[in-house]
Amino acid sequence: MVKVGIIGYGYWGPNLFRNFNETLNAQVVCVCDLKTDRISIVKHNYPTIKVTNDHRELISDKRIDAVVIATPVSTHFELAMLALKAGKHVLIEKPLAATSEEYSRLIDEAGKRKLVLLVDHTFIYTGAVKKIHELTRKNLIGNIYYYDSVRINLGIFQHDVNVIWDLAVHDISVMDYLLKEKPYGVSATGGSHVKGKPEDVAYMTLFFAKKLIAHLHVNWLSPVKVRRTLIGGTNKMIVYDDLEPSDKVKVYDRGIAVHEGSEAMRQILVSYHSGDMWAPYLDVTEGLRAEVEHFADCIENMKTPITNGESGLRVVKILEAANKSMEKHGRPVKLK
Amino acid sequence: MVKVGIIGYGYWGPNLFRNFNETLNAQVVCVCDLKTDRISIVKHNYPTIKVTNDHRELISDKRIDAVVIATPVSTHFELAMLALKAGKHVLIEKPLAATSEEYSRLIDEAGKRKLVLLVDHTFIYTGAVKKIHELTRKNLIGNIYYYDSVRINLGIFQHDVNVIWDLAVHDISVMDYLLKEKPYGVSATGGSHVKGKPEDVAYMTLFFAKKLIAHLHVNWLSPVKVRRTLIGGTNKMIVYDDLEPSDKVKVYDRGIAVHEGSEAMRQILVSYHSGDMWAPYLDVTEGLRAEVEHFADCIENMKTPITNGESGLRVVKILEAANKSMEKHGRPVKLK
Amino acid sequence: MVKVGIIGYGYWGPNLFRNFNETLNAQVVCVCDLKTDRISIVKHNYPTIKVTNDHRELISDKRIDAVVIATPVSTHFELAMLALKAGKHVLIEKPLAATSEEYSRLIDEAGKRKLVLLVDHTFIYTGAVKKIHELTRKNLIGNIYYYDSVRINLGIFQHDVNVIWDLAVHDISVMDYLLKEKPYGVSATGGSHVKGKPEDVAYMTLFFAKKLIAHLHVNWLSPVKVRRTLIGGTNKMIVYDDLEPSDKVKVYDRGIAVHEGSEAMRQILVSYHSGDMWAPYLDVTEGLRAEVEHFADCIENMKTPITNGESGLRVVKILEAANKSMEKHGRPVKLK
Amino acid sequence: MVKVGIIGYGYWGPNLFRNFNETLNAQVVCVCDLKTDRISIVKHNYPTIKVTNDHRELISDKRIDAVVIATPVSTHFELAMLALKAGKHVLIEKPLAATSEEYSRLIDEAGKRKLVLLVDHTFIYTGAVKKIHELTRKNLIGNIYYYDSVRINLGIFQHDVNVIWDLAVHDISVMDYLLKEKPYGVSATGGSHVKGKPEDVAYMTLFFAKKLIAHLHVNWLSPVKVRRTLIGGTNKMIVYDDLEPSDKVKVYDRGIAVHEGSEAMRQILVSYHSGDMWAPYLDVTEGLRAEVEHFADCIENMKTPITNGESGLRVVKILEAANKSMEKHGRPVKLK
Repeated sequence: MVKVGIIGYGYWGPNLFRNFNETLNAQVVCVCDLKTDRISIVKHNYPTIKVTNDHRELISDKRIDAVVIATPVSTHFELAMLALKAGKHVLIEKPLAATSEEYSRLIDEAGKRKLVLLVDHTFIYTGAVKKIHELTRKNLIGNIYYYDSVRINLGIFQHDVNVIWDLAVHDISVMDYLLKEKPYGVSATGGSHVKGKPEDVAYMTLFFAKKLIAHLHVNWLSPVKVRRTLIGGTNKMIVYDDLEPSDKVKVYDRGIAVHEGSEAMRQILVSYHSGDMWAPYLDVTEGLRAEVEHFADCIENMKTPITNGESGLRVVKILEAANKSMEKHGRPVKLK
Repeated sequence: MVKVGIIGYGYWGPNLFRNFNETLNAQVVCVCDLKTDRISIVKHNYPTIKVTNDHRELISDKRIDAVVIATPVSTHFELAMLALKAGKHVLIEKPLAATSEEYSRLIDEAGKRKLVLLVDHTFIYTGAVKKIHELTRKNLIGNIYYYDSVRINLGIFQHDVNVIWDLAVHDISVMDYLLKEKPYGVSATGGSHVKGKPEDVAYMTLFFAKKLIAHLHVNWLSPVKVRRTLIGGTNKMIVYDDLEPSDKVKVYDRGIAVHEGSEAMRQILVSYHSGDMWAPYLDVTEGLRAEVEHFADCIENMKTPITNGESGLRVVKILEAANKSMEKHGRPVKLK
Repeated sequence: MVKVGIIGYGYWGPNLFRNFNETLNAQVVCVCDLKTDRISIVKHNYPTIKVTNDHRELISDKRIDAVVIATPVSTHFELAMLALKAGKHVLIEKPLAATSEEYSRLIDEAGKRKLVLLVDHTFIYTGAVKKIHELTRKNLIGNIYYYDSVRINLGIFQHDVNVIWDLAVHDISVMDYLLKEKPYGVSATGGSHVKGKPEDVAYMTLFFAKKLIAHLHVNWLSPVKVRRTLIGGTNKMIVYDDLEPSDKVKVYDRGIAVHEGSEAMRQILVSYHSGDMWAPYLDVTEGLRAEVEHFADCIENMKTPITNGESGLRVVKILEAANKSMEKHGRPVKLK
Repeated sequence: MVKVGIIGYGYWGPNLFRNFNETLNAQVVCVCDLKTDRISIVKHNYPTIKVTNDHRELISDKRIDAVVIATPVSTHFELAMLALKAGKHVLIEKPLAATSEEYSRLIDEAGKRKLVLLVDHTFIYTGAVKKIHELTRKNLIGNIYYYDSVRINLGIFQHDVNVIWDLAVHDISVMDYLLKEKPYGVSATGGSHVKGKPEDVAYMTLFFAKKLIAHLHVNWLSPVKVRRTLIGGTNKMIVYDDLEPSDKVKVYDRGIAVHEGSEAMRQILVSYHSGDMWAPYLDVTEGLRAEVEHFADCIENMKTPITNGESGLRVVKILEAANKSMEKHGRPVKLK
């Protein structure tokens, strides 16, 4: 039984709380938030759980094995470092930290102390993404031609990050999980429409060594909500629409067949095939529930999490490069 | 009654033929195509219409007032120039020509001879785009924040142009019509997945002087067809989905209200409003029909077409800049 | 502060619990369920709330003002009667009881004791139904021509009621709320496909004195979930799709205009108009939350609930008539 | 080469014309319509085709092998009988005639003369229905539990038939083709909302000997267009949505598994399975084209059409029974 303390009970904290509370191999023992009204909600509903507005009190609580951090991004690094130094395992809301340099320090600290460091990239743990991972690993899709994702809605403006750090982070972590290749460069564009606020609309292209091209569109100002990823391969194409109530993942037996025939021929050597469509049954477990169970399992059985610090670091390096490119109107930026 | 000759009876030619045939103020008198089987279809169904495989014969036909060109892009310039020099008005499939330099020469020639030169940007003439134009002109939308369009499907590979010239051309012409501002720069990325063929997936961002940002996504390799434009403004937001059987244009009373209040306050000064949605009734006349009638009207009444050579030239300059940027992985290219 | 005891913590009980728990003017003090594992979930998460497997212990609890019943239908009458006789207000899952005769007795008992009796017809309290009610009361729709509802999905087979009692009950209660007229007759058809189980597919038509006709389609064996109501009126038509994430209620300015002209004319005197569509903004409060607050408000302020016993009785009389008609393959049954 | 004369060039006639015109094994030689403006359209576009306003002239035209009838229902019988007596094969718009008695006489006449009599039930010839037929014949679906169809839109009021004869006729003909069992009874309800006009909204249930139940919903007053059929079987369920641009037919591996175990057990013996969904690729040939080719093939090769007079007669007997039941508010009517 992993005993957990949660710092931050704002938007995402209650979801983490509920999932840890309902997981058999974990238990929430303490919740910390700076705001009295947030704390009093916990107190009212769960009178046996300790509450505090002092994160140091939580981190130093001897009963606690793991600290869960769901606070604004700017505080992530400090809180995570304190928790690791106190010997606690850490699950931290994405992005793990504000800079890749801070990431590296957290990874080192966790590594040195043999503590589990899990970045809360929830989508990786959903039935849909797990199924797509299985399909790509089985080579059902063939070589991937493009990865295109749209993640837009009327969103909450973040104080400290732009729309790329808020939304594209999800897609980049999913891509990091699904695609074997890693990108070598980024071109990003975007704009801010509210004075003094960060970019609220952004686009980014990721370049890969082979034919693969990836593109993300994120937007906080869209009147409609869209969560759709297209993955085009040589054999099949996938449409993953996260807002569909069922059949979220559709596999199309559609594509082009290239006949590498006589170049001299003046005919079109590219033909199309249009075949069946197939929507595999998906595990309906909530992604966050699976993540929370995975975190407890990693702690209890000394495993490395799927969304460990290193994967988080790759993601944040792409976010940093995108920011640089966006400042220069799309000028490509290399990834090291 | 405008008498028309059509050169090219392949994919688009029959649509032009049908619309000219059914328009009261025009009449098709001659059709030209190099392929015998295409010509024989016309002969079989419309035995009174002259057919030929020699474009010079058509262009020199004394009865003909106007020449309609629906041939591959690479032949557009030569055919259009011949027709203009023979004193014929010209309606030409988009893009008008392969380079902006050719465009300028055609515009000059038409101008000198006081002939109508209409570029076949069909979407401008649809009920949907006309309604959005009316809404933006009435300032219902407010200042436009972004213009985002997706035009993807399993497409026919073009021999002589890439996916930007084939598909994005539609969106650029619509933007040229709808937006008062003109873009000052372009960043484009894309890729080709078939050896020896042009780019089949592409993305482009257009930069404008104020807060407006525009983005287009075009793709010939998508398993699903999407035709969706989002226009976000300070007052309202529009979703234009051309594949909806009805209610193609939806106007959302949704957006953000920025309170330019005391900067000292630590609260979020951006709030959201979420109100009604409204789908105006649209004229259901086929766009091509309205275009063809507009062409005949311009000829008979000495008017300038909405999609004249100049608007076509602005479009092709953007296409050229996008190609340059795409070669350099998104490096921004200025528009003169 | 209304103090509440909940009997039944199976499928719907936890939803009632959560909503009462989060409502400011109510508090759950006791939960009863026959199953130990259901009880232990409450005990684990809410250690301060009393739990029991004996409903008499809950009903006789002096602290409790109101009893909430979320048990199988066959037990509703007995539990509700016990609670009323103990002087408790009652909120009871639909249907209130198994027969209209039992309904009448519960209504009498509550009336005699001046206790609030609320039937859990949740949909009445949703933003969507409240908005449609407002639109019909303002006469925006005009005279209603038809009311057509489809409520189908892969459902849970009920032990003690058929699909009409499980699903159509929702639509009948909504109709009872929205329509001023009451039906005079029912024709219903349906079938059972699992040996020993009640009807799982059913259709019913309700007849009204004027031109209005209503029809309900309910099905536990549908591979897709549909929740759609069409309301056609002389002025406007409404489409209410409860599964849409937004714009659940759409008002169409579409319909027929009847020209009551010269009968002698051989022309069609019926023309169509097709105008704008409008989707009003809806209150997004969960229906059950609004219901639970309304229940507490009725208790504290001596009000009659919208979904009181009488409205529930009208609903159950229609259910009984539908069952009779269904046995006779659609033979119409009169409603008294 | 089958030579064809078409009587009636109103709404459907031009579609028949176009398909016969484009079919290689048929040729239109004459068109008849009472209205001068309809005739002049043919004359203008197809000057070599004979036009007339006298059906006798067309029927007696020696060149003509087959007569195609696309006139109002009330004239079908007389025109078809004249054509058959003149030795012409007949393709006739649905419904073939106004009464089952007239049907029988036409069938007899065609049989006696060994002429092809095809009823224009177009949907039978679409890729979607052909695929569903193939799936049911392969027993992929298992035993069929229910057949449910919705066919509603803002329709054109017919002068001489109600909405059942106009729209349900399509579904009844599809059911006649797909289902091996034939129904033994009908219960129908409906209403008219325009003075002096026939029913514009109707519902009908068809009863079968085994567990199968079928239901049709047709409506001329719906603000939205719906064309959806659900077919539930023991193994799979089908959703056929004719308005989907692609993937019109979806096969769901969903349903209930009945465990015919110990009746003494109090547990639910019905469990659910929810598996993959599959959308087979469909032939995209227009249904009417396939029908027209089938008609010419039947004439040239002495075959019996799929939608022959007998199948049409079964359909019209159901329509007649539905009318009777509708007059009596759903009272079931037996089919002989």
